Amino acid sequence: MTISKGPQAFPRTEYLRRVAAVRSKMVQRDIDVLVVTDGANITYLTGYTAKSPNDPKGIVLSMHQDEPTFILRKMDVPAAVHQTFMRREKIVAYPEALMGNPDVDGYDALIDLLFDVGLANRGVGLELGALSAHSAEKFKARLPQARIVDCSGLVTWIRMVKSDLEISFMKEAAAITDAGIMRAAEVIRPGVREADSIAEIVATLARGANGKPGTWIATPFLCSSPRTGTSHITWSEDAFREGSQINLEIAGVRHGYTAPISRTFSIGHPSDRLRRVHEAEVAGLEAALGIVRAGCTCSEVAQAIHRAMEKLGVKKESRCGYPVGIDWMERTASLKEDDMTVLKPNMTFHVHLGNWMIDEEFGYVISETIRVAECGVEVLTGAPRKLFELS
Amino acid sequence: MTISKGPQAFPRTEYLRRVAAVRSKMVQRDIDVLVVTDGANITYLTGYTAKSPNDPKGIVLSMHQDEPTFILRKMDVPAAVHQTFMRREKIVAYPEALMGNPDVDGYDALIDLLFDVGLANRGVGLELGALSAHSAEKFKARLPQARIVDCSGLVTWIRMVKSDLEISFMKEAAAITDAGIMRAAEVIRPGVREADSIAEIVATLARGANGKPGTWIATPFLCSSPRTGTSHITWSEDAFREGSQINLEIAGVRHGYTAPISRTFSIGHPSDRLRRVHEAEVAGLEAALGIVRAGCTCSEVAQAIHRAMEKLGVKKESRCGYPVGIDWMERTASLKEDDMTVLKPNMTFHVHLGNWMIDEEFGYVISETIRVAECGVEVLTGAPRKLFELS
Repeated sequence: MTISKGPQAFPRTEYLRRVAAVRSKMVQRDIDVLVVTDGANITYLTGYTAKSPNDPKGIVLSMHQDEPTFILRKMDVPAAVHQTFMRREKIVAYPEALMGNPDVDGYDALIDLLFDVGLANRGVGLELGALSAHSAEKFKARLPQARIVDCSGLVTWIRMVKSDLEISFMKEAAAITDAGIMRAAEVIRPGVREADSIAEIVATLARGANGKPGTWIATPFLCSSPRTGTSHITWSEDAFREGSQINLEIAGVRHGYTAPISRTFSIGHPSDRLRRVHEAEVAGLEAALGIVRAGCTCSEVAQAIHRAMEKLGVKKESRCGYPVGIDWMERTASLKEDDMTVLKPNMTFHVHLGNWMIDEEFGYVISETIRVAECGVEVLTGAPRKLFELS
Repeated sequence: MTISKGPQAFPRTEYLRRVAAVRSKMVQRDIDVLVVTDGANITYLTGYTAKSPNDPKGIVLSMHQDEPTFILRKMDVPAAVHQTFMRREKIVAYPEALMGNPDVDGYDALIDLLFDVGLANRGVGLELGALSAHSAEKFKARLPQARIVDCSGLVTWIRMVKSDLEISFMKEAAAITDAGIMRAAEVIRPGVREADSIAEIVATLARGANGKPGTWIATPFLCSSPRTGTSHITWSEDAFREGSQINLEIAGVRHGYTAPISRTFSIGHPSDRLRRVHEAEVAGLEAALGIVRAGCTCSEVAQAIHRAMEKLGVKKESRCGYPVGIDWMERTASLKEDDMTVLKPNMTFHVHLGNWMIDEEFGYVISETIRVAECGVEVLTGAPRKLFELS
């Protein structure tokens, strides 16, 4: 195959640094090989951003070889050659006959590879939090001599601290996010269908900002009256009305890196309740921004939010945010009172003051994507931190 | 909570019919309760289409109770009340404290529920193909008295045969898909960035067709020169050029139901190779459409495709399609020569003649979403079945 390498999102040295960081954790876990099957972790270690989440694929990272091997469906090999930093010979195709086959699948080919390189009877790390029970059973059954170690989260925790290059993509993504919010403020009007506003918003997220296009469309969430008490609804078939409240959550994406934001819109004057909740949530958000810095804990951030909000008479029950990066949420720490994770420079969080007062059939959202700095915080998203009043 | 029911995609009787179909399979599998955790299967059994794929949620369908119970994160309960056919008391919240908690999660609450209703020591069906190995371990460890039965695919195979109401949503989705293709033909021009064409295409998919908006944005795939040999790439940062070939795969969505299509575009006259491959692929596609009817097997469809294409000197290695419905692909049968699944009326397939000639750095796509009829085929997508020549 002669397909050319595309422009790489990161230089080769950046990927090798990431691989080295994973390798040092592998030493701590006393494993000889790590099998990475989580999609965002594969993106992190290779640069591959093509999307076929249901097809088995995996990185085999051995302690005894310099560079990882990427095994995936034959059809997807050209995209991997084109997108990733990896040399052609490190990208291995499994045959199309393994697709839709009840007996064997791509993970069988990956296990065969472990046998071929003499690792089938060694310490094998698997991501058991991401792998299906079926697939995990296959690994256990076919590798009876291996010592299988659960390495869920090993790569994800490394991803938490971004390089400056990753931060620059987060900033590009955040600029796209902001453009999406400003477009929403232009197009949300009485009589406009929710879907037509989403059309304009997602088009903006694709076109991007500052000459940098969006590289993917993250699912937007739009929960409007009478559904402001709901979360995670994409949008409805209704049109906006005079007096509608709109809770919008969107994210620009650059090379997988995702910078979410939430803002609340009101068509016409917001109710007293909405205004009061908005003030409390902004106070909570700004309390968080006032305390975030390297060395501070997730718990301290959550406490600051709760204290500020409660002073203004509003309680928030759900957690106050989570790390963001490739493919939106990273499943590691949470901004909640019982999470003692210590913040480090270049961690990025979605500080999310979404709040659903379920018994009152009412919700409100505001959030920012932030970077933890040595001595404070850098807010990456820049849309006005206000309750948008539209006419 | 007083949140109102939203307009339901289907009448209550449709959901009860689906639940009854699942129950009859549960009898065959000799289980007392089925735990459904696959997102598309949850949509099928409830109408829930909100998106929070990483948060544990599940349907508990007992043989001893009339209607299923839906357990999910407290924040997501209002959306479930609003969107689903289910009575309020059948929707159970687990507390926000279970989110981002290393020790317990929402599945623990689901397991608690199994104890509460006396099913923890009975035959318990789990979808082990969709559940992570971690979560499956939790079920096994906490339910030592249960007889756990792998019911992966049980609901998915039932979904394969659509009701007429589901077909009507597939048709609405297909009309949106067609609108997306026609918009692509308008906006793909030399000098236009791929991302700007995607902006117009996804906006069209959101606006919908015939007054019916799209209800979600399925990821579009756009693989253009020099990347036509790749698959599953979303799009690149390039602009189209004179002579570019563009392989586009998109899908309109209505209430989860997805109708994909692929078409190939050429800016300027297509090369002889492209034209020759196009003719062979269309011949394969039309051979499939000529043979599909109830009673025919997946194998026979694949054989017809291969025969027609090989007559014209083109081989296709990857499978020739798969069932479609909620959330694009259903993981059941495949249109491949060794799949003896018998087609039934109202099965729907994405007949996919995508073909990547990997050693030649070249690919081509054409496909349709079809419905199997008693005596033939109904092609749901209707965009011109041609190689689009753009100037």
